[in-house]
Amino acid sequence: MESPDTTPEELDAVMERAAAAAPVLASQAPEERSHMLRTIADALDAAAEELVPLAMAEAHYPEARCRGELGRTTFQLRLMADTVELGSHLEAGIDPADPEWGTPRPDLRRLMVPLGPVVVFGASNFPFAFSTAGGDTASALAAGCPVVVKGHPGHPGLALRTAELLTRALSEAGLPDGTFALVTGVETGRRAVTHPRTRAVAFTGSIPGGRALYDLAVSRPDPVPFYGELGSLNPVFVTRAAAAARGGEILTGYAESANQGAGQFCTKPGVVFVPEETDLKDLVADFAGRGGARLLNERVEQGFSRVLDGLAGHPATEVLVQGRETGEGWSPSLLRTDLDTLLANAEDLLTECFGPATLVVTYADEARLLETAGVLHGQLTVTVHGEEDDSVAPALLALGADLAGRVVWNAWPTGVAVTHAMTHGGPYPATTASGHTSVGTAAIRRFLRPVTYQSVPQSLLPRELRDDNPLGVPQQVSGGLPS
Amino acid sequence: MESPDTTPEELDAVMERAAAAAPVLASQAPEERSHMLRTIADALDAAAEELVPLAMAEAHYPEARCRGELGRTTFQLRLMADTVELGSHLEAGIDPADPEWGTPRPDLRRLMVPLGPVVVFGASNFPFAFSTAGGDTASALAAGCPVVVKGHPGHPGLALRTAELLTRALSEAGLPDGTFALVTGVETGRRAVTHPRTRAVAFTGSIPGGRALYDLAVSRPDPVPFYGELGSLNPVFVTRAAAAARGGEILTGYAESANQGAGQFCTKPGVVFVPEETDLKDLVADFAGRGGARLLNERVEQGFSRVLDGLAGHPATEVLVQGRETGEGWSPSLLRTDLDTLLANAEDLLTECFGPATLVVTYADEARLLETAGVLHGQLTVTVHGEEDDSVAPALLALGADLAGRVVWNAWPTGVAVTHAMTHGGPYPATTASGHTSVGTAAIRRFLRPVTYQSVPQSLLPRELRDDNPLGVPQQVSGGLPS
Repeated sequence: MESPDTTPEELDAVMERAAAAAPVLASQAPEERSHMLRTIADALDAAAEELVPLAMAEAHYPEARCRGELGRTTFQLRLMADTVELGSHLEAGIDPADPEWGTPRPDLRRLMVPLGPVVVFGASNFPFAFSTAGGDTASALAAGCPVVVKGHPGHPGLALRTAELLTRALSEAGLPDGTFALVTGVETGRRAVTHPRTRAVAFTGSIPGGRALYDLAVSRPDPVPFYGELGSLNPVFVTRAAAAARGGEILTGYAESANQGAGQFCTKPGVVFVPEETDLKDLVADFAGRGGARLLNERVEQGFSRVLDGLAGHPATEVLVQGRETGEGWSPSLLRTDLDTLLANAEDLLTECFGPATLVVTYADEARLLETAGVLHGQLTVTVHGEEDDSVAPALLALGADLAGRVVWNAWPTGVAVTHAMTHGGPYPATTASGHTSVGTAAIRRFLRPVTYQSVPQSLLPRELRDDNPLGVPQQVSGGLPS
Repeated sequence: MESPDTTPEELDAVMERAAAAAPVLASQAPEERSHMLRTIADALDAAAEELVPLAMAEAHYPEARCRGELGRTTFQLRLMADTVELGSHLEAGIDPADPEWGTPRPDLRRLMVPLGPVVVFGASNFPFAFSTAGGDTASALAAGCPVVVKGHPGHPGLALRTAELLTRALSEAGLPDGTFALVTGVETGRRAVTHPRTRAVAFTGSIPGGRALYDLAVSRPDPVPFYGELGSLNPVFVTRAAAAARGGEILTGYAESANQGAGQFCTKPGVVFVPEETDLKDLVADFAGRGGARLLNERVEQGFSRVLDGLAGHPATEVLVQGRETGEGWSPSLLRTDLDTLLANAEDLLTECFGPATLVVTYADEARLLETAGVLHGQLTVTVHGEEDDSVAPALLALGADLAGRVVWNAWPTGVAVTHAMTHGGPYPATTASGHTSVGTAAIRRFLRPVTYQSVPQSLLPRELRDDNPLGVPQQVSGGLPS
């Protein structure tokens, strides 16, 4: 089912076609671009009966999960289409000439414009939503950038078929053939990052893989932005009051979240802090009673097994439930340590274990939870289970905001809503660009840059910046609120 | 007048104090932060009679220039203060929970938060506006980030005195002493970029210097954003119709802009394209009639002299006016080539010559100006002098938007207005982060990152995100316009 690797010559041709398509996309009217995005969404929805079985076979996820993820993916494309029509992402700004201003001030008008060809590296664990036609592709196209996807080898057939559907839909929508392309091969991916035509890179995957590509992107003669989502432990803090009030419910929710998708979520709660008096019996029984689940692919399985061995064999941890390969896949593992031991062994224990394994940390002194700020690196999420009048809650939420792109209260980090105010991001190594999100409509901003027109006459201005505003985009005049 | 280099131990202490000040700044109320910025502005204005002579002595600029630049600097600080009070930069977004949404959607609220300590490398050519208390410092403080300035050796006394005034003003405003610091020394600068406490770097200077520091920033174990403004040729295209209509006026404006500040502007028009029939006699006389001007410092002078020798001695150029060291400084140089020769020798000729020298390129076929897109790198500005009904004008403006952060029509690129819609930025090597501007209120965004609060109760939310909006910041609800 897998295509042969793209040759260097083929990649050159793909990148040249993308560069040639860039000005065509950049000059689309909003309704053309939103039509393009909706056409893709429709094509994918129409092919659900073909795509869902492909995803099930290649990613080893149950049908409901695959169907849900496809729905999320096409919803995302349509939400991007709505956003493109609204035009807020253009950040149109008009500062009329003002002789009274504190510096000479001619007429200045700003518009966000697309960067050009974007290379997207999809993730294995979301074969739809974070892959070929996923969030990075959707937001880059919404920005007006051609997309070259480096297909994930974990779902080669699905990647190929998705790409065929996209290519056909784009062609039917009248777009040039450089608008979208799929390429394959590890070396091809590296070449794409350093290709002169590439203007930005988006990546979802592991820390080592992402860092290696980041290093390539920033070492180019002309560095390009690299938006990488690399890894996260997603710590969960359960305060003493919350544990006393509803400890059982919290631990049930934890087991559910940690084991969703066989623990293969970038937002899986990988470490949970509970008071030392917490009764873990039911949690142990829950983990021990869960069957095996096949992991995404052999590479994920090998990595998981290696990290789990390291954690389970570490003198600082106690194995509460030892997962194993059941024949039908891996059953979940549950480890335990205490706060002092964790703080003393942080570099060994605070490592992402991508798969069905998670660490419970018991604490005696609630206030000392704040010491974890010194050992936790950047996170996608930090979760607090607390009571509204918990004295430690404000400090834990502040710690969350310091460390992570999303702070969750009395809920679970898995399940990333696709909305306007979502942040799926965070300080390194959660991402390589903490100023941005890779989920939600704000993800479009990654692929735009500002251009300011000075003293350009109305007839020569982009329509978005004209006084008569024929496209009706929100315009910010003299720094006021957009209207 | 110059301080001894900051020792590694002193730098450590400075960075620790900055890190300790970060949460204090982050939690300032808007009126506290704007008060802080206005206090600094007032302190600098009050010291004008002391600062202006220092700048004149160290940067070799005339009094009016220094006075004007100080005014620009304090205006900038006050404009940042106004912006902080308005609160648009916080990008507060509220997506209420919605069970009908296409993905599970709990209550989600986004706020931009400061990154933490920012290291600023000021420029030699704007000892006020792009240095110790300049745009990078102002926008980082406005974002709520402590600032550590690596003082420019070109104006050590001014840097030190400015820092003393800032430090005293901040102390009087009740800020912790880690809010601002000045450090000195080349090696200190490198150490600051790689220091674990540093969260972002802002730089204005040369391509080699900026690239070396960029490389350090991105090679850290935890890479940090590096906002570098490195260099620009600022090409100017004069269409045939414009030259016919008002060629003399355009060339006079060109001579004025190119020689402003002895050609030591990052937005100096370094290359101008005119029709081959253009009479250059008056331009030559203008350049030849200008006296010498002392350059910023010996290093700038050496660099200028080396690049000028390379250009003037190149077989592809003709020297129309040979500048020289007059005893009172350098008189300006004017070189000439034609479009074909330029395109054939682009790498040699299209190099920034920081100082009083500029290149005129004559063309026969106006349409072929668009071929320069293939040889020009990223620019801060592209300028077009044309007529509104010029057939080539739309394509030249589009070329400008492709290459640059600012497109200027029938005006000159020198003189960067500090406003809301300004972009002082552009594709590499003009900057290392084309998604941003280093001038104007949008510069604040470089030092912020989004955090989303999920299902956090009103009493525990940051005030900016509460339903009752006690601070009155603009809130974007469900992706609508902020209000």
